[in-house]
Amino acid sequence: MTSGKNNERPLILVTNDDGIAAKGLKVLTEIAMQLGDVVVISTPDSQSGMSHAITIKTPLRVKTLEKRKELTRYLLNGTPVDGIKLAVNQLLNKQPDLILSGINHGANSSSSVIYSGTMAAAIEASINHIPAVGFSLLDYDADADFSHCYKPVKEMITRVLNDGLPEYICLNINIPKLNGSPIKGVKVCRQVNGYWLEEFEKRTDPHGGDYYWLTGSFYNREDGVEGTDEWALNNNFISVVPIHFDLTAYHLIDQMRNWEKLSINE
Amino acid sequence: MTSGKNNERPLILVTNDDGIAAKGLKVLTEIAMQLGDVVVISTPDSQSGMSHAITIKTPLRVKTLEKRKELTRYLLNGTPVDGIKLAVNQLLNKQPDLILSGINHGANSSSSVIYSGTMAAAIEASINHIPAVGFSLLDYDADADFSHCYKPVKEMITRVLNDGLPEYICLNINIPKLNGSPIKGVKVCRQVNGYWLEEFEKRTDPHGGDYYWLTGSFYNREDGVEGTDEWALNNNFISVVPIHFDLTAYHLIDQMRNWEKLSINE
Repeated sequence: MTSGKNNERPLILVTNDDGIAAKGLKVLTEIAMQLGDVVVISTPDSQSGMSHAITIKTPLRVKTLEKRKELTRYLLNGTPVDGIKLAVNQLLNKQPDLILSGINHGANSSSSVIYSGTMAAAIEASINHIPAVGFSLLDYDADADFSHCYKPVKEMITRVLNDGLPEYICLNINIPKLNGSPIKGVKVCRQVNGYWLEEFEKRTDPHGGDYYWLTGSFYNREDGVEGTDEWALNNNFISVVPIHFDLTAYHLIDQMRNWEKLSINE
Repeated sequence: MTSGKNNERPLILVTNDDGIAAKGLKVLTEIAMQLGDVVVISTPDSQSGMSHAITIKTPLRVKTLEKRKELTRYLLNGTPVDGIKLAVNQLLNKQPDLILSGINHGANSSSSVIYSGTMAAAIEASINHIPAVGFSLLDYDADADFSHCYKPVKEMITRVLNDGLPEYICLNINIPKLNGSPIKGVKVCRQVNGYWLEEFEKRTDPHGGDYYWLTGSFYNREDGVEGTDEWALNNNFISVVPIHFDLTAYHLIDQMRNWEKLSINE
């Protein structure tokens, strides 16, 4: 287990992929400041859909927006993963006890985790052996109502600060949108098998050139299957999915041994 | 199993993240054309490190470079994953029997798979239920020697065309650089636990502004451990890792059940 326990206030790094001005980032920062000293790093604009992208061909620049013991805020021209790398390796004086990402405006359940800048930041933290949690609210609205998030998010952050997380693991936590009835509870889940059905919208510009806008709707291959994140969210539970960065399909390694007999030399 | 078997020549979609002019793309296209009709989609410049990023805020544009039955080539202003989505949903008349990505100039072993545009394209294919393979050569040189790749790559593509791949699985195949002795064979492996130790290079521009270049070196947490991709490559074997897009850490779901008792309402 990696644990953030020690005697001084923990150091919590907070990031997101909706940009520095996002309401969800402010909410998460506010909650984190009740539990530790906070460093925020985010970007001028939204980095949604940036996934685990890193910036290789252009240099990174950082602006310090605010610097006090309780709260330091950095503005970065890069991706969420750049932000984690730069903060951990350059900006922070010590390794953070916890990295939080979010609260994202919009769901990151099912296979969305793989496109998400929010979750990429948390996964990058776990690769670097730092406990991390990504939070998402099922509401894309820039002015989404986060009022029901404070209590559960604080409870869950406290749990991770106290107990740590298993090695190389981060959590993907999605919270239902307020719908009039209180959240029923928390479900520890697996990622549902689903994907985005793309419906590109083809348009023609005033000069006669064609272009395409990416749109799409989520298709759940396991609709109604209990134990999945989508099931939990559809039933008004918070979903907690433990995530690891190892993409190996272990169950197939032995099954594929006959590949080792392929003739590969002339 | 998903299988590309049918009576006509299979349709093979080929992409990469090094751009349309990359030598590795030309080699892979050449090999694929021996086995089927080929559609290539790539980008003007390198998209290395773009991971699973998708383009949401700007429209996509496509230019047809070449169009015949055996070979069609498209140029896209987007990411590798955009290319898969657009080809499958808009450009192709039928679902491809196989999607190939690469041959990447440089390794995509270990956790590099998560940053890689090459592998993101293959993973996107697997999410869409299309058999896919990402190939990488352990040589970053733009003029890398691919001469030893032809035989094994053709053998492996033929294997997948004949037998298909298990559902929602793609393969991450890395090939050692030519080093004077022939490749020893193929090993079916798991992804090694390793990460990139970042060493940002801080510089100051002529106007006094600081900026950072991302550099780094790979650190293997399991150096010398047999059964890992890095071990295979270091011992002059081709590594084949079966990859799935489900990031759930299944072994922790039951262990975390006590999270379901968290008090989350006021």
